[in-house]
Amino acid sequence: MAEIFTLSTSQAKQCIDITTRVREIVRKSGVRDGLCHVMVLHATAALAVNENADPNIGVDLLAALDRAIPDHAGWLHDRIDNNAQAHIKAAILGSSEIIPIADGDFLLGTWQGIMLIELDGPRSPRRVAVTIIPAP
Amino acid sequence: MAEIFTLSTSQAKQCIDITTRVREIVRKSGVRDGLCHVMVLHATAALAVNENADPNIGVDLLAALDRAIPDHAGWLHDRIDNNAQAHIKAAILGSSEIIPIADGDFLLGTWQGIMLIELDGPRSPRRVAVTIIPAP
Amino acid sequence: MAEIFTLSTSQAKQCIDITTRVREIVRKSGVRDGLCHVMVLHATAALAVNENADPNIGVDLLAALDRAIPDHAGWLHDRIDNNAQAHIKAAILGSSEIIPIADGDFLLGTWQGIMLIELDGPRSPRRVAVTIIPAP
Repeated sequence: MAEIFTLSTSQAKQCIDITTRVREIVRKSGVRDGLCHVMVLHATAALAVNENADPNIGVDLLAALDRAIPDHAGWLHDRIDNNAQAHIKAAILGSSEIIPIADGDFLLGTWQGIMLIELDGPRSPRRVAVTIIPAP
Repeated sequence: MAEIFTLSTSQAKQCIDITTRVREIVRKSGVRDGLCHVMVLHATAALAVNENADPNIGVDLLAALDRAIPDHAGWLHDRIDNNAQAHIKAAILGSSEIIPIADGDFLLGTWQGIMLIELDGPRSPRRVAVTIIPAP
Repeated sequence: MAEIFTLSTSQAKQCIDITTRVREIVRKSGVRDGLCHVMVLHATAALAVNENADPNIGVDLLAALDRAIPDHAGWLHDRIDNNAQAHIKAAILGSSEIIPIADGDFLLGTWQGIMLIELDGPRSPRRVAVTIIPAP
């Protein structure tokens, strides 16, 4: 039922528009109405719904997270894996999103898309699970 | 399947209790058990589940977000639309929530309600989509 | 349809791994594929999906939240209940998570688990609702 796709990230911190990839899975499913759950299967990346049209929104989001949660600010997990900031930000942002499906497509606002937020890259593969629940 | 309602916001930044509006849609649906998905269809507003009984919680939430993510702190998107802080906060807070439905009503804690968080207002209309998935 | 379990917290601020408790409910349900919704029924606690293997990740997360949202930093709700920081953090972290179920178990990344984040403890009982939607 869940379908998994993968992608590669190219930077340490990066926002990537995955709306088209997820929409393809929704359309292929043939489901007309329901909910689409999207989840990144990693603890150092996250998902968000926001605007991808201006890619600087992703840049600003990453900068704001860095400002509030600086790298290596005494985090204990850095002693083991040196990526505590990524775990902290991923827990705050969240690893999944749910989008309504209506008439066979996403029900989203004009400026809303799905972004994968890489926080400890570059990494390959990053796995994303898409689960569709049709309306009864 | 999804039902959309609209509301107007009156301030630049504002928390509005929408629990009653969403509950009406749940009751009208006749669904006894399931999940209720609520999503604001904009990239500069957000949803949260928390206490509305003391409206100062919403005021404190907005103040804490302003403290961590100040207006016009060099955000790149401000060159285009001057509302980068709203996009950043919306991505962090999230645009949707899911509430269980049990015995025809929300399953929520005593102090939990649904709040719409306007971050770039005043705006009208703000659109909210409510999708109900009944238990089989 | 929703099943509620309770737990006790022992510290003012604390991250507790609840993955095993929720997984038991999923397995008992017999559902092979679908979605599992988990929600803490309180406005001063939250849920996150992240790594529990190194418990210092939870410690770092709580420290980062304290750094961005200090206790008693002039919050208005403190005049009533002295726990504004808990409400603010809970609204930002979110009170619920959804995990896919595949082949009768969670579909999670290697380092992903479910953590309950106590922000105004110690408290007993803390109630958690688990709702399972099977695939049709």
